[in-house]
This record gives sequence, C-alpha cells and structure tokens, in this order.
Amino acid sequence: MKIGKTTVPASAICTSDDETIVVRGEDLCRDLIGKLGFVDYFFLLVTGQRPSAMASRVLDATLVAIAEHGLVPSVQASRMTLAAAPDALQGAVAAGILGCGSVILGASETAGRLFARIDALASERELALDVAAEEGVRELRAAGQAIPGYGHPLHKARDPRVARLFEVAAEAGTPGRFVAIAEAVERVLPGITGRELRLNVSAAIPAVLLDVGFPLEALKGVPILARTAGLIGHLVEELAQPIGFALSYQATRELRYTGPLPAGWTPKD
Amino acid sequence: MKIGKTTVPASAICTSDDETIVVRGEDLCRDLIGKLGFVDYFFLLVTGQRPSAMASRVLDATLVAIAEHGLVPSVQASRMTLAAAPDALQGAVAAGILGCGSVILGASETAGRLFARIDALASERELALDVAAEEGVRELRAAGQAIPGYGHPLHKARDPRVARLFEVAAEAGTPGRFVAIAEAVERVLPGITGRELRLNVSAAIPAVLLDVGFPLEALKGVPILARTAGLIGHLVEELAQPIGFALSYQATRELRYTGPLPAGWTPKD
Amino acid sequence: MKIGKTTVPASAICTSDDETIVVRGEDLCRDLIGKLGFVDYFFLLVTGQRPSAMASRVLDATLVAIAEHGLVPSVQASRMTLAAAPDALQGAVAAGILGCGSVILGASETAGRLFARIDALASERELALDVAAEEGVRELRAAGQAIPGYGHPLHKARDPRVARLFEVAAEAGTPGRFVAIAEAVERVLPGITGRELRLNVSAAIPAVLLDVGFPLEALKGVPILARTAGLIGHLVEELAQPIGFALSYQATRELRYTGPLPAGWTPKD
Amino acid sequence: MKIGKTTVPASAICTSDDETIVVRGEDLCRDLIGKLGFVDYFFLLVTGQRPSAMASRVLDATLVAIAEHGLVPSVQASRMTLAAAPDALQGAVAAGILGCGSVILGASETAGRLFARIDALASERELALDVAAEEGVRELRAAGQAIPGYGHPLHKARDPRVARLFEVAAEAGTPGRFVAIAEAVERVLPGITGRELRLNVSAAIPAVLLDVGFPLEALKGVPILARTAGLIGHLVEELAQPIGFALSYQATRELRYTGPLPAGWTPKD
Repeated sequence: MKIGKTTVPASAICTSDDETIVVRGEDLCRDLIGKLGFVDYFFLLVTGQRPSAMASRVLDATLVAIAEHGLVPSVQASRMTLAAAPDALQGAVAAGILGCGSVILGASETAGRLFARIDALASERELALDVAAEEGVRELRAAGQAIPGYGHPLHKARDPRVARLFEVAAEAGTPGRFVAIAEAVERVLPGITGRELRLNVSAAIPAVLLDVGFPLEALKGVPILARTAGLIGHLVEELAQPIGFALSYQATRELRYTGPLPAGWTPKD
Repeated sequence: MKIGKTTVPASAICTSDDETIVVRGEDLCRDLIGKLGFVDYFFLLVTGQRPSAMASRVLDATLVAIAEHGLVPSVQASRMTLAAAPDALQGAVAAGILGCGSVILGASETAGRLFARIDALASERELALDVAAEEGVRELRAAGQAIPGYGHPLHKARDPRVARLFEVAAEAGTPGRFVAIAEAVERVLPGITGRELRLNVSAAIPAVLLDVGFPLEALKGVPILARTAGLIGHLVEELAQPIGFALSYQATRELRYTGPLPAGWTPKD
Repeated sequence: MKIGKTTVPASAICTSDDETIVVRGEDLCRDLIGKLGFVDYFFLLVTGQRPSAMASRVLDATLVAIAEHGLVPSVQASRMTLAAAPDALQGAVAAGILGCGSVILGASETAGRLFARIDALASERELALDVAAEEGVRELRAAGQAIPGYGHPLHKARDPRVARLFEVAAEAGTPGRFVAIAEAVERVLPGITGRELRLNVSAAIPAVLLDVGFPLEALKGVPILARTAGLIGHLVEELAQPIGFALSYQATRELRYTGPLPAGWTPKD
Repeated sequence: MKIGKTTVPASAICTSDDETIVVRGEDLCRDLIGKLGFVDYFFLLVTGQRPSAMASRVLDATLVAIAEHGLVPSVQASRMTLAAAPDALQGAVAAGILGCGSVILGASETAGRLFARIDALASERELALDVAAEEGVRELRAAGQAIPGYGHPLHKARDPRVARLFEVAAEAGTPGRFVAIAEAVERVLPGITGRELRLNVSAAIPAVLLDVGFPLEALKGVPILARTAGLIGHLVEELAQPIGFALSYQATRELRYTGPLPAGWTPKD
C-alpha cells in the first residue's frame, strides 16, 4: 500500500554534497556562519532573501519583545513537563510551544491578517484608514471572531512594549503604513465594541513586521521562535531550581471538586 | 486533594508591574528591545549575564551552523504534521523539536559532558589532553554509551561546519581549551574504536561554546533554538508548496509487509 | 505579577484522599478497576455517565476501526521522532498525535458538526433528510469549507470500515438517525460537487457515535485515543526493528532542490 | 542529497488494498471491528498476538487504574495548553503526554526493568527472591539511579490501586511471579534505604503485566494510552468549563521574584 501523494517532493531551502551545504543559494560555511547574524539568517530561511538593515533591526526587536514575560501558562506547562520528564528537554520545549495558540501568541498572525485586509480595503477603494479599519473590524465581528491584539489582562494602558516597538520601527525608518493601520483600529474599537481596548504586543509585532516586508504567512513563527528562547531560559532554571511541582501544588490549593461522591463517603482532611 | 510540592515557587528571570517588565534585572522596554540583539538576549535569559563580544560572536555562529541542513527526519516529521494539521503551526514546530533527541541534535549536550569530564580529568590529575581524552572515552564506552559528536553519514571527512566554527572561535579570541579537547578525542578515537570518526558539528558546537562560558546544562538548548528557526522556514514553504504527503508517499513506495496474511487473501495491485 | 484568571478552579472529574480515589462519583478501586472495562471507563471519564450496552459496543468498534491503518504520515512522523530520540517514547507518541489535525483525523469532529447541523435543520423545519443535507452541505461550501468525511485516496468505493461500523451499529440497535444523515449527505454530494465522494471512516465514526449519545465536543478524542494505541504498536516495533531513518531516506530519494546555487558550484554526486 | 538509511523499510503491522485492511494477519473489518475489544486489539497491535483471557483482564484493569488521578501536573499542562490553543485539541493531548516521563509515569517501565533483572538473577543463580531483590536494588543504587515505583506523595500507606490490581491479577489466575518480586523489593527496601517506601501503582502495573506476558519494551505505552483517555476527559471539561488560566493564576499567586531589579525601580502593587 502506498500512502500520500505520488508527486516528487521539491524544496528551495537547502541542498548539499559532502563538502558544501547550500542554504537559500548561499554557501553555509563560506558565506553565512560567522558572517550573517542568526536573526538575519532566520529572515533568509523564511523569505529566501537577506533582510534590509531596516528589516533586520525591526525583526530583532520583535523577537526580544516577545521572548519572555514571566511564568505565563505556556511556561508553567513547560516547567511542569520538565519536572515530570527531566531527561527530555525537547519535550518540555515542545509542550511550551504547543501553548502558542490562537488565544495567546497566535494573535500576531490573526492581527496581521486583519491589518492586511484593512490595507487592501483602503487601497482598493481609496478609503481613509479609519474608515477601512472600521469596515475590517466589523467584517471580523460579523464572522463571529474576536479582535486579536487589543487589550491585555495586566497592562490596562498600552502594553509598554508597543511604544518601544513603534519607536524602534520609526528609528529604523520603516514606512509606518501598518503601524498607522494598527492605530486606526485602536481608535475605532471603542465605537464598535464599547470598550477601550489598547494595542498590545501581539498587534504591534505584525504592524512593524509587515512594514518591513516580513511575510504574513510567517508571522506566527516570530513568537514561536522568540518563546523558544524564553522557554530554554526557564528550563535551564528549572533544572537548577525546580519549581514545576510547586507550581502544580499551588495551582490546586483551592481546587474544588464539583462532581458527585460515592454514597456515604467524605474525604479525610 | 493537593498535588505537588508545598513550597512557594520562585524564579529569577522576570517580574513586572503594569508599566514595566523586568528581565534578568534589566528593563525590557528601556534597556533591551532594539538595544540588545536577540542572540545576546538568549544568552542573558539563559545565564543571567550579557555575553562578552567573544561569546556573542561564537553563540551566533553556532546557531547559524545548526539551524538548517535540508529535509532531515525531524523536518520531514514537521512537514508531514503540518500537512495533516495545517491550522496548528505550533504543533508542527513541536513535532519537529521532538526529534532533537539523544541520537541527533542531543549529541551537542552529551559531547559537552564528555569534554567537561576530560577537562576535569586533565586539570585534577595534570594529564596531557590526549591521555585525559583516552580515559574519558574509555569511561564512556565502559558505561556502554556511544561517543557523541564524531562521524557523520554524509560528511565522511570532517563536517565542513567544524572548520568554520573553529575558525570563528579563533577569530573571536576564545581560549581554545575545549576545541583542543575535542581534537584530542578525534586523535584517540581510531586507537580505541578502530574507526576513523571525524569531529562533526555536534561536537564542534559544545567545544566552542564551553570555551566562551556557555553553561553545559544549556547546551541542548542551542540546537533546539536553531532548529526552530529552520523548522519555521520549512513550514512557511510547506504552506505555500506542500510536500508533506508527497514525502510520506515516497517513504512507503518500497515498503514491505512482513507480517502474516489472512488465509486465502492476497492483495490486489 | 499574577497571571491568569482570579477565579478558583473547579473540576467534576476526580477527587481523592489518602485511601480513596473517586472518579466521576465512583470509587476507583472498589467499583471500577477490574469491573468496568477501559472503553466504558473512557465513556465515563468524558461524559460523567457509564455507557449503555449499545453505546459501549459502538464506541469500542469505532476505536478498533480507526486505531491502525499502516504507515500513514503521522505514524511515519512518530517513528522518525523515536529514531532520533529513542529515550523519549512519550515524545514520539506526542509527535504522532500532533498529526491528528483537521485534514486527517479531525474530520471526525467536523463531519459530526455537519451532521448535527443537518439534524437541527431537519427537526426545526421538518425537512426531509436529503433536503436538510443539501442545505447543510451548501452552507458549509458557502463558508468556504471542505466537506469532511467523504472520499478516500485509497478506498475509491466506500471505505470497507464504513459498512462494518454501520453493521455493528445496527446489530447494537442504535436509532440510526445520524447514519441516515450521513448517507443523505453521500446521496446529495454528487449533485452539489459533481463528484462521487463516498462516505469514509471519518464520517462513519461520528454518525454511529452521535446515535449513541457520545458528545459532539468529544468526537475528536476518539481518533486520538485510538491512534495512540496504534502509535504504541508501531513504536514498540520501531524499538525492535528500526525503520525511522530508512523511511526518511526513501522519502528524499528523488527530492529536487529548486532554489538557487552559489555561483560556479555544482553538487558532486 | 539523500538522508537516512539506504535500506528498504519493512513492517509487520498492517497492509491493505482498496477492499481489505489487514492488521497483524487479521482482516480488520471481518474479524476485528465489533468482534475484538479495543483493549485486546491494543494487545494484538503491540505483540502480534491476541491476549489470553487472563492477559486481557489484567491489561484492562491496569489501563483503568492509571488513566485518571485528578489535576496532576501533566493534566494541568494539558488544560493550560488548550486554554491557549483551543482549536488544537491534539496539541493539548500531546502536551499532557509529554509529561509521561521518567519521574512520573515512566516509572512503570523502569520498575519493570528492575523486576526483570531480579527475575533473571533469581533464575540464573537460584536465589531466593528477597536475596535477588536486594542485589537488584543495590545494583540500581550503585549506578546512581532511583528506585522506581515505591513511595507516593499522597498515599503514604500502599497506594489503594496496588491491592486492587493484585486482587484482579489473582482472580485472573496469573502466575504471580512478578508480583512476588515487587513485594520482595518492598520488603528489602527499608534495610537498604532506611525508609519505608510502599509499592505504588507504577510498580504494581509492570508486576501484573509481566505476569501475563506483556512485553517489557511496551510497558511505558500502558500509562501513555491510559492517560490519553484521562486527558481527553479533562479537555472536554476544559472546553465546557475552562480552568486552564485559573490554574495558571493560582500557581503564581505567591510566586517570588529572586533576581535583581533595575536601579531605583520597585514594582507597583
């Protein structure tokens, strides 16, 4: 039995022989190692092109902005996993990455899609950004979807990373089109939702990255790569100072059981 | 029921209030975003210290060296996973990272442990490096373990990344102690194993990283972070030009079934 | 900094003291181990109720039907992962489960949602099943979604597991409402899509399970649990007779590199 | 470039044509679906043989025993992952399974290896079980390894699942050799370790399974399959009554930050 597609697979990323490894058309050992920085290499891997100085600076800043924010749920999941399976660091990293979903870090991608839609609406129909933003947001809500990238449980004012990322983007000389779109969304949201929801880092990241030509389809990869660095930091700490099981204990200190009990049984203290 | 440890958890990595995020004692928005590069930030996250210029350069080179090497098994696993679950990029990345195990990329850590042991043997007993290397290798073999980081299925001569990493380390001015140990192991291996096994990239990485003070316990994190970048490159290509199912088809073209068959049944072509 | 919701967590699944473990209101050691079969226990865990004899028989049959179908992509991904990380069986199982996504096994859930929608349409507006099926399918297509659970790359006629599952359901005495809906969809599909797409196992499973009261929200859990059994079978074989790297080699035998090459470089054979 | 092994892959588990699926020599649709229970099918998948009635009963009991024990760390990790990525149930299951490591559920396998070693010692050298048990335990400790499967943070007396599993095994008529070995270890442990460590469920499972011929190499698969059922129960509850973020909040309520602070900065309440 044969499974899958009968086509011959092809890839444009890497080839090699026993002396040379070619990545995206460049000789890895001669042209890249020690010559191109890892962040620029990430851009090259994803897009097939080296980044401009502007794109390099902005991508680097977004990776630093999103790599670490304390013991968020995915970090807790990762540290608990390492506590239970200390021999398999890769498993604990994987568990942490699995929490980079639509609700948390995946908002970078969905916010990016909203901005790209607003950009298209504004361009095609020559709309002012606020008008296009209002239409884009209303479309999303009509489809029953949440507005990604606005509001934060901790940072009620604008997330401080937003201002800093916009500052870096301005310093780097980005065109600022998608930052303007992100701010237009922030302006129209109260009129639509009745709530003051300020730009958070998950909206700022696609705004500055789309302004430097980073592909929409790869946006979700940025928080994943960044968080991998953060997770490794936490896991190295976990190996030295384990708290995975302590977190688990704390989490259940006040846990209530709401199901039925066997007849006549009550738990001992 | 309470689960886990009754201790209060503590971490030295990150704290924050609604205006400020502190990472390793620095203000993320004021001091780090747009000022410290992502690779240096990774070093800071893992160690609590900013890297020296030398350490920064070497760590960056190792990340570039190991990020990508074509459609290796973990990349295939990742692309097949995305083909089956295209909505969950994080799941496909996780599947790829799960292949960073002891046989493949985990060798960076186990080779690093061997080099640290040889370093300790040489220092404590004032042995020449070749003598200490021979003893370290024999200890590992006596414990029934493979020698990690030597030999490569494709690169029969030294993996070309090895020379380049050693060159970058020399240019950066590293002390070279662990590179010398890695080469001592290469010299003594034929006498012990009867086989010419040349240094591969998984041994070169810990050699140059231990020389710049990167912690032994975090070595496995380097290929994991690097490969995450490579995986994201492949997954962005997979979204645009899917080959996950084609790889799967090719893999089983000549598959033989070696189990029993129901009486009287033969498969139709 | 506090993260997450300020509510006290609650769960109705399990509580315990040092002598007794209560699951869904029953004493695990006194009432369940050795008395309730694992498949019935799965039903109890998911729904809070023991299954009827009918539900038990049907759920068991669906788990057997979907557990194993050879070296499908998720099994390949799992075996490649074990080859690279043989110490971490749990990581290889996890890699395989990550391939239970929307395209492959997740179709059980999306097909179930379609059937539930058709059931509601037929009930609320007193429509014949074929009319409701046509409307349900057209809704899905208008939303740009594929029709899940129909067609199979290998089994061009009806997947043989379909007839057998429907037979088991009939023997068990299920009401057959959702089987009738699944067949109505099969009848109307050619008129809508222009293609003969026959019911496959991913549509048969929700049809028979919804007929015995298995919850829609848990449908995706059935292929995941079933495939876990299949994956473990493959991984035990992989430990004894490794093929993970052989699969990987075969997959890339004809791989073409379609990217640029460094000036003047051609690969050696 | 070709990657991996140049051998042709083979497997003895499954083959098929467009009408028939063969698993372990049996016709899936004719002989297995609706005829062989899922637990027996799991035994067949793993071993290539249908289980005896005795083996079937014991395997089923172990799966029920270990499937669920409340909000243990891996369940918390899984529910937090679903809260962050609710669209990807398979990712949350995978995150939970990744916690089935050496410290927690993996003890089933390592305890099984200890029992097999003690069995071999006793047989080869005609030792009494207590003598062989003492020797086996001392070997493990000499190698710097923990004794798996003894002691439990909650159940200070014998874990209640142990007595029940041994009872089921006795009722089923198992030879009891490995149960006797497990109890011999329990007897000799206080003399060796100075601590009363009672048999827990992770030692009872391999004891009863090895007595019915379940392969040592597959032991770790039993808790993984069982926990998958438990995880799905929790995840279905999480979809209806989310507590993933509440657990995360509770876990960090008393979290202390032990790192440095920027000069002059103190967190606001």
